[in-house]
Amino acid sequence: MKQKGKTQSLLVALGGNALIRKGQVGTVEEQFENLKVPIRQIARLSRRFKILITHGNGPQVGNLLLQQECCSEVPRLPLEILVAQTQGQIGYMIESVLDSELMALGIQYQQFIVSLISYVVVDENDPAFLEPTKPIGPVLQEQTAMNAPYPVRKTPKGFRRVVVSPKPVTIVEKREIKKLIEQDFIVICCGGGGIPVVREGRSFCGVDAVIDKDLASSKLAEEVDVDIFLIATDEKGAAIHYGSAEQEFLREITVDQATEYLKEGQFPPGSMGPKVEAAIQFVQSGGKRAVITSIDSIEAAISGDAGTEIRPNP
Amino acid sequence: MKQKGKTQSLLVALGGNALIRKGQVGTVEEQFENLKVPIRQIARLSRRFKILITHGNGPQVGNLLLQQECCSEVPRLPLEILVAQTQGQIGYMIESVLDSELMALGIQYQQFIVSLISYVVVDENDPAFLEPTKPIGPVLQEQTAMNAPYPVRKTPKGFRRVVVSPKPVTIVEKREIKKLIEQDFIVICCGGGGIPVVREGRSFCGVDAVIDKDLASSKLAEEVDVDIFLIATDEKGAAIHYGSAEQEFLREITVDQATEYLKEGQFPPGSMGPKVEAAIQFVQSGGKRAVITSIDSIEAAISGDAGTEIRPNP
Repeated sequence: MKQKGKTQSLLVALGGNALIRKGQVGTVEEQFENLKVPIRQIARLSRRFKILITHGNGPQVGNLLLQQECCSEVPRLPLEILVAQTQGQIGYMIESVLDSELMALGIQYQQFIVSLISYVVVDENDPAFLEPTKPIGPVLQEQTAMNAPYPVRKTPKGFRRVVVSPKPVTIVEKREIKKLIEQDFIVICCGGGGIPVVREGRSFCGVDAVIDKDLASSKLAEEVDVDIFLIATDEKGAAIHYGSAEQEFLREITVDQATEYLKEGQFPPGSMGPKVEAAIQFVQSGGKRAVITSIDSIEAAISGDAGTEIRPNP
Repeated sequence: MKQKGKTQSLLVALGGNALIRKGQVGTVEEQFENLKVPIRQIARLSRRFKILITHGNGPQVGNLLLQQECCSEVPRLPLEILVAQTQGQIGYMIESVLDSELMALGIQYQQFIVSLISYVVVDENDPAFLEPTKPIGPVLQEQTAMNAPYPVRKTPKGFRRVVVSPKPVTIVEKREIKKLIEQDFIVICCGGGGIPVVREGRSFCGVDAVIDKDLASSKLAEEVDVDIFLIATDEKGAAIHYGSAEQEFLREITVDQATEYLKEGQFPPGSMGPKVEAAIQFVQSGGKRAVITSIDSIEAAISGDAGTEIRPNP
């Protein structure tokens, strides 16, 4: 009984908390267990939608970087190779949890699933190369942060290492991904924002950076013509006056309203800021619906009962 | 000008020396440079054949294991996750070198390429779980080897760490890979023998092991109905009386001859042994041609001018 008639496509961008929750060290067991929450919902949604899944990799890529800096016996690898490693790791974890959840629904043989290595072109003249802004790896003790031999920033979670984060220009595998989606493959891709590369003549060359996964996901959603772009994170959606007594949760806003709030600095950079920016970009590029919601409320948000929805201007 | 009429499929299994040559430490630059030799040939062959590429990961997975053992700050990951990481790393490297080589030929837009995370089911009762045999990571100094807190074996290259290596039972993504090949995607998959998993009820569970990449490739070649299975390694092919004055290179042998030589112990275990075994299995399962050849002679071997060919019995 092959499912027919799925006309709409849905891209779910999973935030770091899909794998590691607050207060956890991030063992593999924890990560597999945490993934069940979003993936079970996505498995059910795969009956109605063509599905793409992207994911972050901040803690995982930071851990690999720490590890290779501890160990003098092994040649160090540039950041782009570490991003590739996290695509393997997290892609496997998502795919195998999804397999299990599709099996639990009895629909595993109706669905093709692939987890793809993906790389993303950035512009070598992007001013983002001048200043590290993207937090990766664990939260650092203040003492460690002060003496760190690498750039560190204070983030809402605490002190963290930061790396440069250029804007995604195009997804190299977009033709492949589009073709796979058309054929109703579930595609897991663009992990950790994609492996960052610049064009060098007729070739590509990796760069030492980490692309924001929400911006890369928005670019992917645009390039493969996705209908709904959903960002799953640890907040129930976007709010203005965040963290103050006047905090007000936003249920549905237009692109113009969202752009205005973003300009006012209502959404913290490196956190809700890039998510709202990614949602705006998707809708401006012609996307129908962009939704920011919590990991627990993916299905509810698709039904219009949770999250912050960014809609085209009327 | 879309290429039509590719009726035959070719699986190339790349050995470790496709990435790291003898005497090299294995920097990323070295690995990218080394890859050009096999990948340039594969790019040209993609005009005539549907292509699958698999690869080893011994040095890379061993390096990740060493790194995480040096570093107490980061939670350790089981071997199956490290295999997944090497699939990301090496899959990316192969795909990007292949992109460049297809560009150099001016045929990059005629070809879809995907690099897939793949996992492979093993049998939890496989006796291989009782004894580590598969060498991974760097060659060790004798002193280090003697005091190592993990199992070590003397291999033809020197002392190396060994891990358990169960036989591949089935490739989880075989349906997906078959469909992709039918549609003329070049598919990079089953890296490092695949991520080893066992079935647990309706679900899969990773195991701490590394599958032999030639045996996994042979299983893949069988399950997706490949026509030609080529193993690219650092020897020009199989020989009997290897390393002695009577050494005799084998140009073409039948499955029966190969099986006989294998029984006699003509091919070293952990080296040429599993390659010949993988070739025999493929031909016995109905495959047309299996060839073992050097990284430099992939095209020549396809033309019948190099390597050891294992043919069905007449």
